[in-house]
Amino acid sequence: MPRFFTDQPVGDYIRVTGSDARHIGFSLRMKAGEKITFCHNGIDYHTVIESFTENEVLCRVESSEPSRSEPSVFMTLYQAFPKQDKLESIIQKTTELGVSRIVPFISARCVSRPDERSYAKKLERFRRIAEEASKQSGRGIIPEIAELMTFEKALDDMKKSDVKLFCYENGGERLGNIHLPQSGTISVMIGSEGGFERDEAERAEAAGAVNIWLGERILRCETCPVAVTAVIMSLTGNM
Amino acid sequence: MPRFFTDQPVGDYIRVTGSDARHIGFSLRMKAGEKITFCHNGIDYHTVIESFTENEVLCRVESSEPSRSEPSVFMTLYQAFPKQDKLESIIQKTTELGVSRIVPFISARCVSRPDERSYAKKLERFRRIAEEASKQSGRGIIPEIAELMTFEKALDDMKKSDVKLFCYENGGERLGNIHLPQSGTISVMIGSEGGFERDEAERAEAAGAVNIWLGERILRCETCPVAVTAVIMSLTGNM
Repeated sequence: MPRFFTDQPVGDYIRVTGSDARHIGFSLRMKAGEKITFCHNGIDYHTVIESFTENEVLCRVESSEPSRSEPSVFMTLYQAFPKQDKLESIIQKTTELGVSRIVPFISARCVSRPDERSYAKKLERFRRIAEEASKQSGRGIIPEIAELMTFEKALDDMKKSDVKLFCYENGGERLGNIHLPQSGTISVMIGSEGGFERDEAERAEAAGAVNIWLGERILRCETCPVAVTAVIMSLTGNM
Repeated sequence: MPRFFTDQPVGDYIRVTGSDARHIGFSLRMKAGEKITFCHNGIDYHTVIESFTENEVLCRVESSEPSRSEPSVFMTLYQAFPKQDKLESIIQKTTELGVSRIVPFISARCVSRPDERSYAKKLERFRRIAEEASKQSGRGIIPEIAELMTFEKALDDMKKSDVKLFCYENGGERLGNIHLPQSGTISVMIGSEGGFERDEAERAEAAGAVNIWLGERILRCETCPVAVTAVIMSLTGNM
């Protein structure tokens, strides 16, 4: 069944306009009487198309339920900004795997450092990628892609989390040895190509984060968040 | 320290010729007295450069040890041949994560079906990607990329494994519930874009494989093997 996201509060009806309406009417060639699922805030609304007007599709809500595809943990990925288009692939794949929020930030060893204007442009694209990956993988929410933060701001933002993990190439605990709750909030901070400075690892530790070591094999910067998200989802019973 | 693979048996000396010799002499501009590690069959040989001739670098072995970066399990990934260049990315990322052998095969829903000649060409490229990823991630071996098999042949090949897993989108056990040994051989069979036919799942089960279910979220064909390899390495204490 086609799956769309809506950011409007849902009552008895959902009115679809804009590109989603065109997609339903023209690309999918759907007709009155056919069924569509809309997701809002982790709830799946099962609807039936009642009518089409020129710019709008009117759908009647038949039933709703919490989205079955949402993981029981709210995982935030703090990702140091990598080079090239690697963040796009990271957003796509961690979204499929169940991440709930992605916070790009600038660490000491980041080579790519977009300014505000260039990040604003990228952000639009990042959000589109997150939405597409959410639709494709059947998510109940679209992960939030945050504004670009400094390392300090990201660390401060992370403090609220129940579990705070800091991936450090110079050693730490193995992920499998960490007690991860089956619900609540889990934050993971991952470096860009060059990893982290010792000073950054110490500040993360002082902020309450546990250093995590991913073993002897050196993972590419874009492989690491995908691997970590998969392992966290498995360890919390979500994969 | 620079790291190279050698396929020759190692005695007191290693003679390097061809592109590796050029790489050592010209790209890296190494000199006599400098140290290089060579990997052969999971053993790291720590050597020192003794002399250069026009086409050869002569290295004296100083010590050797089993490669610390090799996982304790020998994991074979049986991957149904995907479209485009997805297999290249799968080879690269699962090599970093610790896979030991990759067997591409053709299943009922494979869209891309290279013939023998076109696969032979691809295979050269696949093997180069595995070697590059092994060097970059510090592996002690280069994972073997096998000849393209039929589904039947791949299933038969898988039979020898201690643990046989079959990733099936229509349900099965969660990976975290499977008892995985900390050593020995683990085989995982993963579908292409369209997944597997019911008939194929039944034949895998008859061959002794356990159906594995990766949860409610639909993973892209190239995300699935990366996620599964990461989780297996974590569950066996290798990540």
